[in-house]
Amino acid sequence: MRHDHIISAKQLSRADIEAVLDRAAEAAADPEAFADRHENALLGLCFFEPSTRTKMSFTAAAKRLGGDVVDMGPVGSSSVKKGESLADTVRVVEGYADALVLRHPSEGSAQMASEFVDVPLINAGDGAGQHPTQTLLDLYTIRESAGFDDLTIGIMGDLKYGRTVHSLAHALTNFDADQHFVSPESLKLPRSVRYDLHEEGASIREHTELDPVLSELDVLYVTRIQAERFPDESEYRAIAGEYQIDTETLEAARDDLTVMHPLPRVDEIAHEIDDTDYAHYFQQAHNGVPVRMALLDLVLGGDR
Amino acid sequence: MRHDHIISAKQLSRADIEAVLDRAAEAAADPEAFADRHENALLGLCFFEPSTRTKMSFTAAAKRLGGDVVDMGPVGSSSVKKGESLADTVRVVEGYADALVLRHPSEGSAQMASEFVDVPLINAGDGAGQHPTQTLLDLYTIRESAGFDDLTIGIMGDLKYGRTVHSLAHALTNFDADQHFVSPESLKLPRSVRYDLHEEGASIREHTELDPVLSELDVLYVTRIQAERFPDESEYRAIAGEYQIDTETLEAARDDLTVMHPLPRVDEIAHEIDDTDYAHYFQQAHNGVPVRMALLDLVLGGDR
Amino acid sequence: MRHDHIISAKQLSRADIEAVLDRAAEAAADPEAFADRHENALLGLCFFEPSTRTKMSFTAAAKRLGGDVVDMGPVGSSSVKKGESLADTVRVVEGYADALVLRHPSEGSAQMASEFVDVPLINAGDGAGQHPTQTLLDLYTIRESAGFDDLTIGIMGDLKYGRTVHSLAHALTNFDADQHFVSPESLKLPRSVRYDLHEEGASIREHTELDPVLSELDVLYVTRIQAERFPDESEYRAIAGEYQIDTETLEAARDDLTVMHPLPRVDEIAHEIDDTDYAHYFQQAHNGVPVRMALLDLVLGGDR
Repeated sequence: MRHDHIISAKQLSRADIEAVLDRAAEAAADPEAFADRHENALLGLCFFEPSTRTKMSFTAAAKRLGGDVVDMGPVGSSSVKKGESLADTVRVVEGYADALVLRHPSEGSAQMASEFVDVPLINAGDGAGQHPTQTLLDLYTIRESAGFDDLTIGIMGDLKYGRTVHSLAHALTNFDADQHFVSPESLKLPRSVRYDLHEEGASIREHTELDPVLSELDVLYVTRIQAERFPDESEYRAIAGEYQIDTETLEAARDDLTVMHPLPRVDEIAHEIDDTDYAHYFQQAHNGVPVRMALLDLVLGGDR
Repeated sequence: MRHDHIISAKQLSRADIEAVLDRAAEAAADPEAFADRHENALLGLCFFEPSTRTKMSFTAAAKRLGGDVVDMGPVGSSSVKKGESLADTVRVVEGYADALVLRHPSEGSAQMASEFVDVPLINAGDGAGQHPTQTLLDLYTIRESAGFDDLTIGIMGDLKYGRTVHSLAHALTNFDADQHFVSPESLKLPRSVRYDLHEEGASIREHTELDPVLSELDVLYVTRIQAERFPDESEYRAIAGEYQIDTETLEAARDDLTVMHPLPRVDEIAHEIDDTDYAHYFQQAHNGVPVRMALLDLVLGGDR
Repeated sequence: MRHDHIISAKQLSRADIEAVLDRAAEAAADPEAFADRHENALLGLCFFEPSTRTKMSFTAAAKRLGGDVVDMGPVGSSSVKKGESLADTVRVVEGYADALVLRHPSEGSAQMASEFVDVPLINAGDGAGQHPTQTLLDLYTIRESAGFDDLTIGIMGDLKYGRTVHSLAHALTNFDADQHFVSPESLKLPRSVRYDLHEEGASIREHTELDPVLSELDVLYVTRIQAERFPDESEYRAIAGEYQIDTETLEAARDDLTVMHPLPRVDEIAHEIDDTDYAHYFQQAHNGVPVRMALLDLVLGGDR
């Protein structure tokens, strides 16, 4: 995988994914061993959209490898405002760095940009498109908590607009997971995603309620239902309320259920869950560091 | 003090304070000795309010110790905008760092946030609450210039709203300083602060003019009187003008008077003072680096 | 040149310039040799105006030398908003860093600020004034591609407002270049610049069209014509269109013509040029790193 661009989780085979997760597990277990691995490496950060955790965890990952970042800063203070094209921006920034991380609001932008640069480019989210490092840290969290053997996962919330969810569902077909999708009727998986998953031989079922499947689940992946998807506030309140998790909801769950969430959460998961063994969402966010360390290590030539 | 949170100067005993100041003096005298002390350490910066000097000097301090920072960036570009709670934010960020620095507009927020994280959290200002690292650098500056023995200090300007001043006054009770408070009637110390200082056995006196006490002072700590505290501009002008310092004002002062100011200043101190031996305010700002190096060194386990 | 401020390219003799370019060439050829040269150095970044490439390449340069940066951040989040003077800001920040980089909208601000600090200050652009590191990277690019011997250069576009161009033209008088200035009548060199160049014995000629001189040129330096210089959009369109470069335009050029541009470009240079040997503008941007490494190395005491 050395020196490749990382554009989409779909480009990664099961073997590729496992190579990243194995490397991430090494980094988590023995960070000291990675601390000087890329001592002079600079990672160029091109974030055309706000981001907290993705940007911070790429930054932490670069620094945990002994490297550093060069940040383009917010778009408002950059040449982009003067009308510079994305292709020009990345061609300039590649001169300042050994690898690039790009977040951009347009679907397909990461692929396009990668064709203009010689250094490895990692997609950190391209609008409604892909966000492969999020998928990898989700997979890592699942592997560390529940494992991939005979995995049964529930994915709940906004399944229509959530790119995180689509990308994870695709990736899980590599591991023959049983996938249950739980959402209000109006936020079901898009037909095209459902079709693709069927084509890939995925085992999927769709539900409007969590109760019927909860007891079967090894993992419950919760996402946020956004108010702006609904015509009025009261409709949103009514529907969102049905897809919230608290300790009462989880009474029917297995004791070793892993609850995940890509964060930020608003009130999809009650705070009373935070201190239970169910809660893996903060650990999930933290896993962004070893996973991104692993990816950077691989694209920067960690096999040396 | 290892691995503790630093929330308020009030939590620090005289011995604690002296341990920080001694360590800071070591860092200032021999920075080389500290240059690799925390080589793999990452400091997470969570600034929910603008800051120049506090953020820059924490950053410089982390880097002068061989460590680095991971910055949440401005709130406008973060998950906070999506409705994430402070407790969630700090629990995510602690996964990216070995210690956290928090500035937040709400009084009490640092204490609350510290209860959710396992890494040391340092309060860099919580609204009208505490700002302990400012107090420590003020104390360091006083110790280096005038010393604590038989200290007589004047604190002048806005004594009603200035948290810096309240915190410093409390801390100075540890050193039996004679404290003179000089302000317009409308900006006197709040009754509650005066009461607490009396309870702590502080030696304090209040004045509306500087002249009567100036010649007794070892240190004069000037703060800014803000226009927005007054109903109209002309009243502000009139009052603020009485609490400005220039070389004429200081004719009655002792030759070794130390003039301090937390900065930024507007026109409380005439520029003609800058090149005199009275001026310690830039050095005071610079002292933020060794003082924060010392604090970080202590919370990160500098005794190893 | 050790410990000097770098305010204007005009302060640099031919020998000074060549010392910087030689050092830059060393840094470009063998970056490893520079990787630990300033291991504990901190560069204070004071950007009072937006900047992408200047700020990023100073940052990359500091880090490529083993050092790091402490960034004041955007003005909106700083003490400047509270009315702090530039002189005060730089006097505070010098306490956090070993050298300062200043960009500020007011002409003359870098010179003024440098008089208040003891650490070296590098001007990264002071409004309509100077931007010496841009000039040095332009000179470096010319030396690496065309060389200074018998150099014939065309400088085209907005010659009235472009400080980059004025500064470069002055610097090129050190190397006895033949300079052709190509612009619409309304955007010709200001009389004062033309006068100064004549005084310095420069060999200059002015044109309104590129065609007559193109075939003589070793280097063609293109700058952007900004819409806001014209009373109406259609006039701008008509004029800007005449000063755009594409492969057809360049048919009359020498095969080894070097095309440069300070970037960002909008449509002054057609994208079809990007993949030809003419295009040196991305390399020119990348050259900012070794050139700034060289400058930092020199001001921080690289001769040790």
